Amino acid sequence: MRDFLPEQAKKKQFIEDFLRRIFERYGYEPIQTPIVEEFELLSAKGSGGEAIKEEIYYFKDKSDRELGLRYDLTVPLARIVASNPAMLKPFKRYCIGQVYRYDKPQARRYREFTQADVDIVGAKSVLADFESIQIAIDVMRGLGLDFAIKINNRQVLEELAKKCGVPDDKIKECFRAIDKMDKIGKNEVVKELKAKGIPEKIMHEIETNSFERVKDIIGETEGMKNLERLLELSKESNYKEVIFDISLARGLEYYTGNVFEISIRDGPSVGGGGRYDKLIEVYGGLPTPAVGISFGVDRLYDALASTLTIEQEADIFVAAFSEKDENALLSFSSSLRKIGVGVEIDLIGRNIRKNVEYASKKGLRFFAVIGENETKSGKIKIKGLKNNVEKEFEIKDLKGIAEFIKNEK
Amino acid sequence: MRDFLPEQAKKKQFIEDFLRRIFERYGYEPIQTPIVEEFELLSAKGSGGEAIKEEIYYFKDKSDRELGLRYDLTVPLARIVASNPAMLKPFKRYCIGQVYRYDKPQARRYREFTQADVDIVGAKSVLADFESIQIAIDVMRGLGLDFAIKINNRQVLEELAKKCGVPDDKIKECFRAIDKMDKIGKNEVVKELKAKGIPEKIMHEIETNSFERVKDIIGETEGMKNLERLLELSKESNYKEVIFDISLARGLEYYTGNVFEISIRDGPSVGGGGRYDKLIEVYGGLPTPAVGISFGVDRLYDALASTLTIEQEADIFVAAFSEKDENALLSFSSSLRKIGVGVEIDLIGRNIRKNVEYASKKGLRFFAVIGENETKSGKIKIKGLKNNVEKEFEIKDLKGIAEFIKNEK
Repeated sequence: MRDFLPEQAKKKQFIEDFLRRIFERYGYEPIQTPIVEEFELLSAKGSGGEAIKEEIYYFKDKSDRELGLRYDLTVPLARIVASNPAMLKPFKRYCIGQVYRYDKPQARRYREFTQADVDIVGAKSVLADFESIQIAIDVMRGLGLDFAIKINNRQVLEELAKKCGVPDDKIKECFRAIDKMDKIGKNEVVKELKAKGIPEKIMHEIETNSFERVKDIIGETEGMKNLERLLELSKESNYKEVIFDISLARGLEYYTGNVFEISIRDGPSVGGGGRYDKLIEVYGGLPTPAVGISFGVDRLYDALASTLTIEQEADIFVAAFSEKDENALLSFSSSLRKIGVGVEIDLIGRNIRKNVEYASKKGLRFFAVIGENETKSGKIKIKGLKNNVEKEFEIKDLKGIAEFIKNEK
Repeated sequence: MRDFLPEQAKKKQFIEDFLRRIFERYGYEPIQTPIVEEFELLSAKGSGGEAIKEEIYYFKDKSDRELGLRYDLTVPLARIVASNPAMLKPFKRYCIGQVYRYDKPQARRYREFTQADVDIVGAKSVLADFESIQIAIDVMRGLGLDFAIKINNRQVLEELAKKCGVPDDKIKECFRAIDKMDKIGKNEVVKELKAKGIPEKIMHEIETNSFERVKDIIGETEGMKNLERLLELSKESNYKEVIFDISLARGLEYYTGNVFEISIRDGPSVGGGGRYDKLIEVYGGLPTPAVGISFGVDRLYDALASTLTIEQEADIFVAAFSEKDENALLSFSSSLRKIGVGVEIDLIGRNIRKNVEYASKKGLRFFAVIGENETKSGKIKIKGLKNNVEKEFEIKDLKGIAEFIKNEK
């Protein structure tokens, strides 16, 4: 787990605000759910499963209730939808919040991290899947990142596995092995498949990665149609970043249809998602189709931290010449804030040189001192800290000062 | 713990955004720290103390490390300041995040709640205390709430207790009893004081609540000067909501000087704070003065939920006339979003009546359908959902459509 100090927190916040704006532009609305959930919920069969205990923060409270910290934002969403059957559909929600995994710490992996999820509940059309892709494109292009979005379909992968002679009871293991391709490499995956008695033919098809070939092998199935339509829509929108990848399995068990994964070009995965039409039922809800995509805010932060610069929110630093000018300082600074100017004042009574140093380090753009001269003459000088501008104003001319600060860079 | 569904989450988010804007206007910068902290940190002497274990979520992780969920945002701040001695001072940070208390559930009290804190570290001037008050005034007036801010000083209260004959070793107990005044009433507090062998005289002074009288009794002490200056500054700024209250003790042990509490008029406390000049040392830092104020976002939400209305972020709902018009729908909606219009599209293929019903329920303001007629003629009708306006545009005239949506209410 890590702290975000101001320089970092401002960048992280910028990314979160940016995501929010895009989500809202598509008609998604926020929800917030607790970080602590019942363990029973987190470990439900068809969702996390009992095995999840090893991967999460699990504990009992003082009345011996089994609890855990949420490991994603999808399970709480499914709980809410299941327990509110009358909810207006499609339910389009976004959620930005911390989730927890008790992994062995690795480089660029954190035990506490922030996810930003958008999901559509109650729409089975591929248009809904495509909206996840549209949003991913808007986010990644908007943030100026070089990226790719891999697309596949769980049904298609399963059908292909069957056609390649993978026995039904080994399909899950087969996916889990294939899913490790990026991490452990092809040779290790082949070894693992062999050890598990899974025919190597599936590896051959995966290596070939030809959409037409896969289509020939399995035919016009429902999964195939959904995958094909998603690729078609991406092509029509000129989304060159979207690529078919038959090896994409996505670890989570609850996916049922199209799946996607966003990666920085030659870099890590920064998000992914897919269709999960059975998960709401796991939590006692009616059969309800659902699809969504999740962005790893920490991964995006890591990709952007070194290049992103955020403007300081306060615009001007104002100091009193001496202690008896404090009232004048307070009155001037409050009046400026009232018309929307960000003002930081000297709270320490330092000399001008030290104040200028502090204000410059903090990235403020303007500086002023208020003392006896100023209150007597009714005039104050506003100085630029990033350049050498200096202009005198009537203290009462707040609008003029605000204009100047806004326009002069 | 509670869920915030969209209608609620949008209001909560509005309040958080509003707080953030005010904090930033005063030159505060964000930080984010983990929700899980070492138990040793949370239970340090002079901070939470060992007894805190009963009041928080405490657990051990798989390697038997003692952990807890943070119960406030001040302790993590103190940790950060203590471990970064080179930090630019004054360090002005804000933090908005969830904290956890394992209380018995009560009405209007939650085990998970959101706090929004502003703190100044490294400034001992009363100007810094006053900035907490200024921010509280801006927040509460800005949210349109009827409120009062009680002010007192821990040193003054301690000195008064001593003058009233309260023995040194009973001062803490005495404060704790007085702090319950609002909850259990005067009679119960007097009973408790008697039972503890604390002289009743202190109760008499508290009831009288006269600043001049207290000043006469204890004289011009440092605490008195700080309190007096804070009241003076409030008066000069015409803050009629600020009132002296000698009974205000504030439970937390770490306060050392001026303390404040914000309450809704005839309602609950929605925040508070004060000066804590010793806390950074508790965490191994250099002696560093600090002061801040904390807003209970859930309390503010409860006070505002019934009156606040938030506009829907997406502006227009667009549906395809039939499945073969989907591409035209996607192209039109994407183009509008690119120039900043919020667009939600039909993802279900419903009929027009049902789509209008859905869009109206969700609070969208405009509606349009795109089909063969529209693509052939190159024209589309934009209809108002909140009134009867209707206007036809060239499909290509995106700017005209955006203008219309922006200006027509």
